[in-house]
Amino acid sequence: TRSYSITLIPGDGIGPEIISVAKDVLVLAGYLEGIKYDFREMLMGGAALDATGLPLPHETLSAAKQSHAVLLGAVGGYKWDRNDKHLKPETGLLQIRKELGVFANLRPATVYSPLVDASTLKREVAEGVDIMLIRELTGGIYFGEPRGFGTNDNGEEIGFNTEIYATHEIDRIAHFAFKVAQKRRRKLCSVDKANVLEASMLWRKRFLAIAQEYPDVELSHMYVDNASMQLIRDPKQFDTMVTNNIFGDILSDEASMVTGSIGMLPSASLGASGPGLFEPIHGSAPDIAGQDKANPFATVLSAAMLLRYGLGEEKAAERIENAVMDTLNRGFRTGDIYSAGTKLVGCKQLGEEILKSV
Amino acid sequence: TRSYSITLIPGDGIGPEIISVAKDVLVLAGYLEGIKYDFREMLMGGAALDATGLPLPHETLSAAKQSHAVLLGAVGGYKWDRNDKHLKPETGLLQIRKELGVFANLRPATVYSPLVDASTLKREVAEGVDIMLIRELTGGIYFGEPRGFGTNDNGEEIGFNTEIYATHEIDRIAHFAFKVAQKRRRKLCSVDKANVLEASMLWRKRFLAIAQEYPDVELSHMYVDNASMQLIRDPKQFDTMVTNNIFGDILSDEASMVTGSIGMLPSASLGASGPGLFEPIHGSAPDIAGQDKANPFATVLSAAMLLRYGLGEEKAAERIENAVMDTLNRGFRTGDIYSAGTKLVGCKQLGEEILKSV
Ligand SMILES: CC(C)[C@H](C(=O)O)[C@@H](O)C(=O)O
Ligand SMILES: CC(C)[C@H](C(=O)O)[C@@H](O)C(=O)O
Repeated sequence: TRSYSITLIPGDGIGPEIISVAKDVLVLAGYLEGIKYDFREMLMGGAALDATGLPLPHETLSAAKQSHAVLLGAVGGYKWDRNDKHLKPETGLLQIRKELGVFANLRPATVYSPLVDASTLKREVAEGVDIMLIRELTGGIYFGEPRGFGTNDNGEEIGFNTEIYATHEIDRIAHFAFKVAQKRRRKLCSVDKANVLEASMLWRKRFLAIAQEYPDVELSHMYVDNASMQLIRDPKQFDTMVTNNIFGDILSDEASMVTGSIGMLPSASLGASGPGLFEPIHGSAPDIAGQDKANPFATVLSAAMLLRYGLGEEKAAERIENAVMDTLNRGFRTGDIYSAGTKLVGCKQLGEEILKSV
Repeated sequence: TRSYSITLIPGDGIGPEIISVAKDVLVLAGYLEGIKYDFREMLMGGAALDATGLPLPHETLSAAKQSHAVLLGAVGGYKWDRNDKHLKPETGLLQIRKELGVFANLRPATVYSPLVDASTLKREVAEGVDIMLIRELTGGIYFGEPRGFGTNDNGEEIGFNTEIYATHEIDRIAHFAFKVAQKRRRKLCSVDKANVLEASMLWRKRFLAIAQEYPDVELSHMYVDNASMQLIRDPKQFDTMVTNNIFGDILSDEASMVTGSIGMLPSASLGASGPGLFEPIHGSAPDIAGQDKANPFATVLSAAMLLRYGLGEEKAAERIENAVMDTLNRGFRTGDIYSAGTKLVGCKQLGEEILKSV
């Protein structure tokens, strides 16, 4: 048997409920494929703030760095919303991304056909959408310096941030994106605002240069405002998309909503080496926390991404993905994806059903 | 008779065709309400680059500043796409916005009920959408300094921009937005990324402070990634929205696409004093330029906004808006909004039909 160490970070809100389901599924799928795990459960976000005063305690980071992969629930909640920046749950998330060096964030936006009617888009527009959005995750305006508050020449308060990209940051995400596109439909759309921003002009210049090394991939460029329209107008025009950190934040949420399957969508954040970070796209949903109402599918599918991209365990990954489809086909749904004629169940029971299908 | 000087800037692509229609409509609606105009047609964008070497010639700017209002078609085209930044058509547009000090950009996203089926959203989601999105237009990352290219400590090329807001810039757009909300359904949603960006934290702090002066308006805050989802999930939850320059660029295009009426949507850009700038939301559509296929409705409706917000000529503005509805109801459509059972016409003929309805 192969053995892996996994850091589990339940986080806040519905995090503990969905991580608990995903862990059980990981264990069973692993068992059936000859995989064993050594799990360590660690604190991050609001839970860590309450317990230790820091959103990313040192022990959590060092456990994460020493493990083969990190599975995260979600962080954040009303309780900490007014905290200063360095004491926000979200800051813990940004820190762990940066510290693990996971510069490439894979966010699939896939329509699950049993759920297509959950999209607010017309069936013929949404059906068959299958986009892989790659977001640069450790650079840009999220981390750029200088940043902060100050006073301008008129004595007024100012707030400022820096959008900045260096060549190597663009190049590595570009190579990553071209390689992903090669395994898909060989169409890569790079999204920027190169008609206004210098950071985007350099982005586009590097993508054009690196495209020479991938003649089999068709590269296109789109301004971010147009991309936000095109995702609604005709999402099927896209195969693989790649963009910077802040545009990726906005467009990936938009794309996931196009599918109507936001409760289904996982993500993987990968670096050049070291453990990857795997988490659902949705948030911590504090309004339904602790009520056994959360949809664990996205976290279970994040566990599948962990197996595939984090551990190279393709078979176990497929086992989980097939189990999810099977559970959907058997009609089990949480409230967020429920529709007439299907079976409404809680988070725990859905977990049991997924296990039956693994 | 009241008399106004109007600067017309046809710009590039379909610009001349749509401005020509809008001018005729302005003249007739004005005539019927006792208004006379003194028009001056000026160059900007690619047309100006070709003729003078600059995207915003000095004469254009000074004519604009001396007039009561500026009506713009659209700028940009493939031909100038690879120009350096200071020689891009878009740079002319950014310069005129800055020079006129038009910090508040009003972008209505309204569903025209005869066109609701043009939306890719389900009818029940799109029908009745009526959002006024207010975009800050002369600050933020579009204009922030420092910006440019450079070399970092590793000798690599970098590209960078500065997202920056000062208190007075936020305060004036906040007051503007609260006042617009007061005349609408008294709900204002301010969109930011205050969980990550200092510039957004100051934005939110000032909005909270200024809200005290508008107790009759219900203020809410939303992160930009969530806003881009909510616009698709349930656009009717929004009344008035306000956001910074770059988020407004992205969200206003998204919102307009939600309505399915992008060829119908005008915009107004206003400052504290001096002439406003009025233009359709859509671009210069170089692919159909000169073919009499362009949809002039958005420019005609921009002329109505010019009358209302730029000149205070409410009656003439309503005359134009009613004429647009009447023309739609009589079934006339350009290709972009055509559907079975309606009458397909070109730009010119649609102009004639609008004139009949004025
Ligand atoms: C919680 C927040 C800091 C985070 C981000 O902006 O990256 C989230 O929106 C995401 O997309 O993972
Ligand atoms: C053409 C471009 C510079 C402009 C902008 O980004 O503001 C356009 O997209 C707009 O929204 O008016």
